[in-house]
Amino acid sequence: MTDRQNHSSGEDSLIARYFRPMATDPGAFNLDDDAAILQALGGDLVVTTDAIVEGVHFLPDDPPDTVARKALRVNLSDLAAKGASPAGFLLTLALPAAEQAWLQPFARGLGEDAAVFGCPLLGGDTVSTPGPKMISITAFGRVAAGRMVHRSGAKPGDRVVVSGTIGDAALGLAVLTRRVTATALADVASNALLAERYRVPQPRTALANAVRDHASAAMDVSDGLAGDLAKLCAASGVSAVIDAQSVPLSAAAAGMLARGRADIAAIVSGGDDYEILCAIPELRLAAFEQAAARAGVAVSSIGTILAGSELPRFLDSQGQALGLPRLSYSHF
Amino acid sequence: MTDRQNHSSGEDSLIARYFRPMATDPGAFNLDDDAAILQALGGDLVVTTDAIVEGVHFLPDDPPDTVARKALRVNLSDLAAKGASPAGFLLTLALPAAEQAWLQPFARGLGEDAAVFGCPLLGGDTVSTPGPKMISITAFGRVAAGRMVHRSGAKPGDRVVVSGTIGDAALGLAVLTRRVTATALADVASNALLAERYRVPQPRTALANAVRDHASAAMDVSDGLAGDLAKLCAASGVSAVIDAQSVPLSAAAAGMLARGRADIAAIVSGGDDYEILCAIPELRLAAFEQAAARAGVAVSSIGTILAGSELPRFLDSQGQALGLPRLSYSHF
Repeated sequence: MTDRQNHSSGEDSLIARYFRPMATDPGAFNLDDDAAILQALGGDLVVTTDAIVEGVHFLPDDPPDTVARKALRVNLSDLAAKGASPAGFLLTLALPAAEQAWLQPFARGLGEDAAVFGCPLLGGDTVSTPGPKMISITAFGRVAAGRMVHRSGAKPGDRVVVSGTIGDAALGLAVLTRRVTATALADVASNALLAERYRVPQPRTALANAVRDHASAAMDVSDGLAGDLAKLCAASGVSAVIDAQSVPLSAAAAGMLARGRADIAAIVSGGDDYEILCAIPELRLAAFEQAAARAGVAVSSIGTILAGSELPRFLDSQGQALGLPRLSYSHF
Repeated sequence: MTDRQNHSSGEDSLIARYFRPMATDPGAFNLDDDAAILQALGGDLVVTTDAIVEGVHFLPDDPPDTVARKALRVNLSDLAAKGASPAGFLLTLALPAAEQAWLQPFARGLGEDAAVFGCPLLGGDTVSTPGPKMISITAFGRVAAGRMVHRSGAKPGDRVVVSGTIGDAALGLAVLTRRVTATALADVASNALLAERYRVPQPRTALANAVRDHASAAMDVSDGLAGDLAKLCAASGVSAVIDAQSVPLSAAAAGMLARGRADIAAIVSGGDDYEILCAIPELRLAAFEQAAARAGVAVSSIGTILAGSELPRFLDSQGQALGLPRLSYSHF
C-alpha cells in the first residue's frame, strides 16, 4: 500500500492498524511493498473499477461501514455479472482528514465484506483531499479462459432475466433524502429496508457461475434497469420488449406502487439496484433457473430480446409502452 | 469503461471521443464492456495504484496534459522500481464537470504517454464530484515469475544507488508556488526546467530490467529521498550511510544550492522525484551501471547499506550528519 506524500509514521500505523488485517493474500506482501502481485491461476483475470463520492453516490451521514461495503460491493457486482469470481481488490481512499471515528467502522465493514466475499485487499493508496470523501476500488476476478460474459452477445429470442428486485435502492434514496416520508406505522419497516438496499447493495456473486454457463450477455444494473437494458441491447445490436408487470418488486416497493407513492417508470429508471441483467437463450432458461435456485438467488424472466435497433420498450398491462422521462441517471 | 450514474449518451460520447483511441489492448474490448481482461502471459502481474488530487498533488493551473502525464507516470515509476514492464492501466476520473477545454488536452497527454510507454488504457470510471479534480490510476506490469523486486532485501554492504537527479521537483513546486522567485535572467530557464520536473516526472521504465536483474531491493522516490530510504531500510531490516555530496543534482538545483537559495536537507527531504532508489550488491554494481548506461539512464552510487536499525544518516563533506527536520511530506 503506497501512500505517496503521506508516508508519515502516523499514516503507516493507520494502514497497519486498519487495513493490514484484510490483506490476507500472499501477493499483497502484507501491504509492506509498493505493488502487489496478482495470480491468474491459469484462467483470465477480469478487472473492473468503480468509485463512489460522498454527496454523489453516498450520503454524508451514511454509516461508515455501509460506505465501505457499498464501495466494494458495486465492484463485486460487476465481477458477478461478467461470470467471474472475486480474487482481490485495490483501495484508493481520498479523505479530508484521518478521522479514527470514521476509519475504524469503515475498515471493519470493509474487512468483513472482504472475508465474506473471499476478496482480500491487495494494496492501495491513501491521499488527502480538500474535497468530499471518495473511495475508488479496483476489483479483480477470475474466470475460465475466454469465458467472461460480455454486454454484447444477446440474440433475438433470448429471454431477458434480472436477479433480485428492482427499484428498492432508488426508493431508499428518496426515503433517506426525505423526498418520500413515512405516513403509516407499517411504512417504517419498509423505509428501513429500502434505505438499507440503497446503502448496502447485494452483489450476486453466487450467481456468477450460472451467468457464465448460460448467459449470452450480461451486465449489472447500476444506472437503472431501462437505461442499462438499452446499453446491453445497443452493445448486442438488438432491441427488447419488457412486460413491466413482470419486473420483480420487493413487498415494500410494491406497497408504495399500490398506494400511488411510487410509479413504475421511476422504478425501472432508478439507479443503484446492483442486480444482474442478462440475456438467456430460451433453451437454457430452465437450466439457468435451476442453477440460480441452487445458488439461492431469485431470478425473474421479464421480457424478450428482439431484432432491431430501437430502444427497448416497457409495456404496461394494457400493452402500452411506458413513457420513460429519462433512461438513467446522469451527473454531467 | 463503466460510468455508473453517468451513462448518459453525453458521457458515452465523451468516453468514445477522448479515451477510446488509447484503449488499444484487445482486453479493453474497445471500452464497450463493464470490465477488461488482463493477460498474464506466463509471468507475474504487478499491480500498483496512485491517485493525484488537484491542489494537493498538482496545481489548479497546471496544464491538463501535464496532469494526465503525471497521473500515469507516478504509477509507471512504481512499476519500473519493481522491475516490471508496463502492461496497461485503469483510469478513474472524478471531475466537477465535463469541460471539453480541460478534457481534450488531458486525453491528448494521456494518450501520448500511453503510446510512448506501451501502456494502453484498459478501462475505468468517470464520476462527478463537488470537490477538486482527482485522477486515480491503477497500473499493471509484467515481470518474470517470482522476479518482482521488493523494498525488503537490501543487505549490509550493498551500494545505495539512485537514478537521475534529486530535488528538482520540490524546487520546481517552490518556484511554481512563488516560495522561490527568479532574481536573475539565468534563473528563468532553470525555473522552467524545475517546474517541468514537478509537473512531468520521468518514469525510469528503461531501467526496469536492470533493476530486476541486479537490485536486492528497490522503490521509487516519491516522498523524498531521505524518507523513502528510511522505508527501504526499515523493510529490509538494515540502516545506511549516505554521502550527501554524492546525491546527484541537476545544474539548476546545484546552482540554487551554490547561491544559498536551497539547502541540501530540503533537497533530500523534498517529494515528487520519481527516481529509482535501489540497493545493489557490490559485485553487481559494475554490471548494473553498464545496463543503466545501455538503457540511457544516469545512475549514481550515493552510499552504503549498513547493519543496524537506526535511521539512515546523510553525511556532509565534514562527515557530520545532516539534521533533517522532517523525513518526508505528510498531509495527515
